[in-house]
Amino acid sequence: MVDEKEIRALCLDLLETGWPAYVTTVDAKGYPQTRAMFNLRNRDRFPKLIPFFDKHREDFTVMFTTNTSSTKITELKARPPISVYYCNPDKWRGVMFGGDIEVVDDSDEMKEFWHDDWTKYYPKGYDDPDHTMLRLVPAVAKGWAGSMTFRLELGDKQ
Amino acid sequence: MVDEKEIRALCLDLLETGWPAYVTTVDAKGYPQTRAMFNLRNRDRFPKLIPFFDKHREDFTVMFTTNTSSTKITELKARPPISVYYCNPDKWRGVMFGGDIEVVDDSDEMKEFWHDDWTKYYPKGYDDPDHTMLRLVPAVAKGWAGSMTFRLELGDKQ
Repeated sequence: MVDEKEIRALCLDLLETGWPAYVTTVDAKGYPQTRAMFNLRNRDRFPKLIPFFDKHREDFTVMFTTNTSSTKITELKARPPISVYYCNPDKWRGVMFGGDIEVVDDSDEMKEFWHDDWTKYYPKGYDDPDHTMLRLVPAVAKGWAGSMTFRLELGDKQ
Repeated sequence: MVDEKEIRALCLDLLETGWPAYVTTVDAKGYPQTRAMFNLRNRDRFPKLIPFFDKHREDFTVMFTTNTSSTKITELKARPPISVYYCNPDKWRGVMFGGDIEVVDDSDEMKEFWHDDWTKYYPKGYDDPDHTMLRLVPAVAKGWAGSMTFRLELGDKQ
């Protein structure tokens, strides 16, 4: 029998080691649109962000940066429901977080997240108009490990 | 400059080597639902199916088997639009196929696909009532390799 504490530990492990994050939005015709994105919670790849995310171990907050001009921004503003999936195929386990994504307009937070080599994506730096930060505070986590499956309600949004 | 022939070769490579497949349906409230599934086109893992899929190199047909009783079957029957994503994070490339999924009712085809060790999922064999086969003939492929992105229209459905 697996208890909620163990499931939360499994979710955190996938969130902090998974690569990449598989992010799905829904287009105007109802077709899901999936793409790989940087998993900024991956501790090996983004050690600078560990202190930020350590404040969000309980609520599993997920953050992304993307180009303001990208089609996904248009989609997300029209339809905020998204899923984010993390998988460890070798250990045969995975988790999906679902909820409504929101745009972060806080320039302090954008500065805190900024990595200098991101100028290749956003030439003008953290306050580049084409740099958008996104936040998902998930309402639900659904996943599996081997033949065990689980569902955790994390909020009242969904 | 990358031409369509090269893009098709990239799509086939991801389809035939990717593991697992990330499959997303949309629930009744409009929330995308993602889970990992066996990529039956992975040639190393399912060599028995290579002859079948060699007939579908041009149309990128994707097949899945799943439990008839699973929630995804309920979702797919109500809303056929799905996305299937394949990624090679090490080579930094990925592709999404999108379109409408359909249930396959052909028992010859179910027999052709059958693997004896699947009795752990479907105890009664290929004609187990809980064994359902699904087919996606994609309408679109969208992907990337490094900084190159592409979109291929494969049909007129979307």
